[in-house]
Parts: sequence; structure tokens; C-alpha cells
Amino acid sequence: MATDENTLIEKPVQFYRFADRMENSKKSFIREILKVTQQPEIISFAGGLPNPALFPAEELAAAAAKVMSEDAANVLQYSTTEGYLPLREFIAQRYLEKSGLKIDPSEILITNGSQQSLDLIGKVFLNKGDRVVIESPGYLGAIQSFSIFEPEFREVPLLDDGIDIDALDKTLEESDAKLFYTVPTFQNPSGVTYSQEKREATAKVLDKHGVVCVEDNAYGELRFAGEDVPTIRNYLENTILMGSFSKIIAPGLRLGWICAKNDIMEKLLVVKQAADLHSNYLSQRIISQYLMDNDVDGHISKIKTAYGSRRDHMVDMMSRYFPEGISYTKPEGGMFVWVTLPEGVSSMDLFDLAIKENVAFVPGSPFYTIEGAGSNTLRLNYSNSDPDDIEEGIKRLAACMEKLSC
Amino acid sequence: MATDENTLIEKPVQFYRFADRMENSKKSFIREILKVTQQPEIISFAGGLPNPALFPAEELAAAAAKVMSEDAANVLQYSTTEGYLPLREFIAQRYLEKSGLKIDPSEILITNGSQQSLDLIGKVFLNKGDRVVIESPGYLGAIQSFSIFEPEFREVPLLDDGIDIDALDKTLEESDAKLFYTVPTFQNPSGVTYSQEKREATAKVLDKHGVVCVEDNAYGELRFAGEDVPTIRNYLENTILMGSFSKIIAPGLRLGWICAKNDIMEKLLVVKQAADLHSNYLSQRIISQYLMDNDVDGHISKIKTAYGSRRDHMVDMMSRYFPEGISYTKPEGGMFVWVTLPEGVSSMDLFDLAIKENVAFVPGSPFYTIEGAGSNTLRLNYSNSDPDDIEEGIKRLAACMEKLSC
Repeated sequence: MATDENTLIEKPVQFYRFADRMENSKKSFIREILKVTQQPEIISFAGGLPNPALFPAEELAAAAAKVMSEDAANVLQYSTTEGYLPLREFIAQRYLEKSGLKIDPSEILITNGSQQSLDLIGKVFLNKGDRVVIESPGYLGAIQSFSIFEPEFREVPLLDDGIDIDALDKTLEESDAKLFYTVPTFQNPSGVTYSQEKREATAKVLDKHGVVCVEDNAYGELRFAGEDVPTIRNYLENTILMGSFSKIIAPGLRLGWICAKNDIMEKLLVVKQAADLHSNYLSQRIISQYLMDNDVDGHISKIKTAYGSRRDHMVDMMSRYFPEGISYTKPEGGMFVWVTLPEGVSSMDLFDLAIKENVAFVPGSPFYTIEGAGSNTLRLNYSNSDPDDIEEGIKRLAACMEKLSC
Repeated sequence: MATDENTLIEKPVQFYRFADRMENSKKSFIREILKVTQQPEIISFAGGLPNPALFPAEELAAAAAKVMSEDAANVLQYSTTEGYLPLREFIAQRYLEKSGLKIDPSEILITNGSQQSLDLIGKVFLNKGDRVVIESPGYLGAIQSFSIFEPEFREVPLLDDGIDIDALDKTLEESDAKLFYTVPTFQNPSGVTYSQEKREATAKVLDKHGVVCVEDNAYGELRFAGEDVPTIRNYLENTILMGSFSKIIAPGLRLGWICAKNDIMEKLLVVKQAADLHSNYLSQRIISQYLMDNDVDGHISKIKTAYGSRRDHMVDMMSRYFPEGISYTKPEGGMFVWVTLPEGVSSMDLFDLAIKENVAFVPGSPFYTIEGAGSNTLRLNYSNSDPDDIEEGIKRLAACMEKLSC
């Protein structure tokens, strides 16, 4: 079967002609950092990982066993592009119960997690050069994903209670943007949550300029303090809502969804078909079975309690050990705290010092599209660290800050 | 929690500004046909479905139970973009054993099936207007997937023993194409397999013009007649090989792979990260466990025997019942027979007649990018029909052909 190796035509590497879009596409800085920080001796606040101790492993194993024993011939076969209908019905019903949103299951598409949702939305909407307005700082995964379609990003500052509405209005006025991308609840990276007033104001400004809102709600269920607020979708029908099972059940199953009106959904289905026919069907069936057989709200409560106590602990430690002049957010949910060093102090320098002390975090610059912006900021994850590690890691980080004379 | 409905801003539908690429992107014709043909009374030769009776359901259930009980915290967590290393090592080892190819696991990326492989390759290589050379007829899924990136397709006729080499040479000369996409073994839709000579000649012509070969080998393991031939990759290093577990294990797990040299792999990893971070990790672990604990070659033998007898039966029935003047391929493997009606007879007309008799197939036109081409051709699938249905379906189809005075 093997051919004579002499017949193999080999070619030098300068040969490949890649698409123009590859020129600006870089590997994720965070994923590269994560490779460095995987050694067990490192206390890592760098990742965005849910805590695996909270995965409902036994329940998911039971759900997997059930669907495989009862319906293997279907579970293992090709399936529909839209996704498993009972799972979409569950999501629609939950929107009604939790947010008062009337969503038809036909307005829900199951994706391979939020990252694919972003890819599909980018494909459907973005021509090269189209403007996309994002929060500053903004979610790196969205910047990466949309970048493939070569838009121009416009950043609008994120304040403590949400986007700067006047700046958003002005940016939309000037940019003729197609999309506004936001994580309004427990934002990644900042932990900021939009107030109800900001949500309503955001909806009004977007409507005034006829801009589609892409509302990424990956963390919305993980509130451990404060009170629930409506989605932006509650105020603006012209919103594409994104959701995910990664943070409330498990990310390895790679399932999220897009909720969009039918005119948009029709286009999303075309690009989903072309992208991978349909999302992993076994995972869809396992999650659907898990949701039928278990109390997911009880499970989410456990996550919230655990993350809440870790956030409390991290913020306590920061207030105890961090030098004066360091500010940070105190998120009401989600997985991240955002730290601002004094003006002129570089979080990359801090990273270099910290990694020698076996502590890791993500410097803030990658969350901005403007070169040099956010150089004195950084993101800390608390969901995936034990309390002892949080104290020790924050102590070491504080010592590194002292060295940089923060 | 629910907002007053009066505050919801609703918008008319003509509002959306989609990307230009959506203008030429249509829903898959085949998937639309499949919706029509799902009623149980219809004998369908339309799909491209593996036979679910041959899924190794018990073994996969055992593998799922094992990975979930032994390593749930990892199996359910985020994972690497490249894919599970032991699975990539298995694929590399199999290339060595089956094809004599020396592939490093770093040259393998696990994807959500071949359809995603196509999407990622399109993203990495194709600018709008770039030329892609395809077989005529060609694989519809590839046409769909590449179309998102708005290339110009150039078709080269597929003959009984592979591509028309002179026509390929001429087309490459004229087109400055970036990619040549081929399914050289048991092609979808035609069932054609390139001879060894054609493979070597194809490699030489591609090398002469400096064109990257995309070799889709989704069916290569399913040979039930004739002798194995080397891959085009055996002759041309500048080949991107695509493989899939969908046809040899199960499609619902949505796993395939791309095998490419490191310079290309580096770009593929960037777009894979942006597309969905990584492929379903649970599925990767299940398949890897299945491959460790079972004799996959023994399993593939069973599939080959079953499909071979179905192909024999379908070809026997066609030779017994079809009118004179109808020609068809006799594939040595894979899942499809390609039928050519007399010149001027429309397979769409035949479809309309056949569906009234509760028989379905896929008319050939969608497998061509040139308007009107292949209007007298059609594809029949035999892998997913019982022998009795094959006889009855072919009889009814033959009767419809008589009505069209074929």
C-alpha cells in the first residue's frame, strides 16, 4: 500500500497563499498564557474555567447512560441543524420563566458554545470594514471571532453601571455600525453589570441608530449578590441573545445557543449548515436528559454559593494586601474581578514578576482593540481557585505590586 | 423580573443589513429534500446516512460510562484547540499502518466532522474571487461550505477512473487556482475512485501549478471490492488530508480531522480557536476510549460487508428493472451510486414522479456549480436501506423512468 517515498513531491513552505483575513488573526493571547500556567505549582487566576468540582458529573453520567441505552440509533445518527427540539423548548420556557421573554423554539439555534455563536453571527452580518461597536474593555473571544471577518472595531467605555450612553450615542452616530456587542451581566473581563436604567437607555440608543444588539449572556445565571435585572432583549426586540451551558453545566459538552428573530435565524441556519451541519447530538441529548431528570436551579444555587464565597474571599484578600492606589471591581456574579493599577504601571511588567513567583493572571491589553490601551489593567479569575490559593496568590501578587512601587 | 411589555421596542423586518456573502448562500437543497422524505412510508435513497444498525452502540455506551466514571472533571472541562492527544496519535499511527504516511500528531487537528474541516480550510485560504477547482460532479457540502467565502468555482470532469487530467491541467493553467478539492475514493456523489495512475498524475499536475490539494477521505475505509490505492497525499506532500469518524463509528459524535503541514496547521489553529475554541471533548474521549478497548478494524469489516451486499443488491436490481439507456456507476466502496438518464431527461421530473410513488433520491444538479449542468443525473444511497426496500424502491423508480420514456 505504501508508495515508494521517492515519488513523494515535497515543497518548501513559502509556497502557501493564505486568505487576507489571516494577516490580522493571531492565536489567542490567553490560550498561550494558559499553556505557560498549567504547571501545578502555579496559582493561576488567568483562566476562565468553571470549577470542575461543581460539574454535575454523576447526573451527566446517568443521563449519558440513559440516552445511549434507550435511543442509541438516533443519538449517534446525523441530526437537524436547528438542534434537538426538546432542548430548544426548555430554553424557550426558561426565558419565559426567568426573564418574561416570549421566545418561540424556532427562534433558538443550538451551537457549539458561545464562541461558535459569535462566529455564526459574524458570518451572517459582517463585511470587511463594517463597524462593530464593543465595550472597552471587551470580551476577547468576541474580538477574536469577529476579527476573522475583518470589521473595524469602535470601543465605547464601560463604566461601573454599564456602557457610557453618551459615548455610545456619539459612536453610533459617527460609525454607521451594524452590531453592538455586549456582555451586560457580570461582564468578561470586567465583572461589570449594567443597571436596569442603563439597559433601557442602551436599547433606546441602539434603536435610534438602527443597530442590532448582540447580547452575550453566558454568566447571567451566576448571580450571588444584588438583584436580577432584565435582559436588554426585554427592551429591544432587535437583539440577538446568546446563551451557554458551559458555565451552568459543563464546558466540555460545548453547547450554547443563539436566540434570534426568524429573519436572522434563517440566515444563521444557512451558515450553521455550512459550518458543521449540526451541533454534537450526543451532548444535546445528554444535557436535555439531565435537565429533565434533575433540579438544575438547585445545581446552579450550589455554583452561585461557591463562586460567591470565592469572590468574597478574593476581594477581602485584595483589600487586606493590595497597596493603596489599586482599584478593582466587586462583581455581583460571574467569574472575574478587574484590577486597575496606577496610571503608568504596566500589568505586563507585573505579569513577568508574578510568574516568577508562580502566580498568573491575564494582563488587560488584549481586551482592547486599540494598541496600548488598558496597559495598567488586569483580569483575575476566582471561580477555579481554592480559598487557600486565593489568599496565597493575592499575597504574592501584592508583593509584586510593591516591587513595582504601585 | 419581567419588564412591562410596553417598553419593548419592536422593529419591522426589512431592517437587517446582512453580509454580502449571504446573498449567494442558500439552504442545502439536500437537507430540504430530506425533510420531505422523512415520512416512514417513503423509501428514501436520498440521504447520505450511515446505517444505524451498524453503530457500535453498546461499545460506545461502555466507553462513555468509563470516561465519565474515571475522569469526569477533565472530560467535562474546557480542553485544547488541537484536540485530545491520544486520539491524534491514534490517527497518526493509523496513517502509518494503512497508508505508509509519516504524520506527526502535531499535524492533526480534531474538528466537528468534515463539514467543519471544510469551513476552516475555506477561512484560511479563500479570499472573495479566489478560484477553487472542484470535480464535476462535486461534493455538495464542500460547494456550500466554500461558498461562504465567495470563491469562483472551476469544474473539471470526473471520468470513470478519476479526474480528467488534461482538463485539470488546462483549468489550473487558466485559473491561478488556490485549491483543488477532491474526494478521490468512493466519491460523493458519483462513487468514482481514482486509479493509482490518476492519483500520481493528479499530484504531478497540482505540483506543476503550485496548487494545494484538499483530499477528502471520508469514505476511504469503506472498501468492499477491488484493491486499496494510496492517498494523493502519498504523492504530494502539499496536500491537506481530511478524515472523519462519522462513517466508520457514528456521525452524531461529530468528529473528523484535518491533517496538514505545520505552516498550514498554525493558521488552522487560529481559525479553529475563533470558531469554537475546541471540538466536543466528551466525544473525543469516548471515541478514543472506544478505539483503545475495541477492534475497530473488525467493526469496519462488518460495515463493509453490509454495504457491499447492499450495493450488489441495488446494482442487481437496477440491471434487472431499469430501462435501456440508463447508465450508473458500480462503486467499490462508500455509500452512493450515480445514475445518468438519457440526454434531455430531467431528474427533477423523475423526482416529482417518484415522490408520488413514495421513493426519494437526490437529483444531480446541486452537485454542479454551473446552472443547468447534470440535469439528467441523480444520486442513490444504498447504505441506509433494507434489501427489500432496495428492490421495491428500484422497481418503482424504474416504472417512473418508463413513464418519462427513458
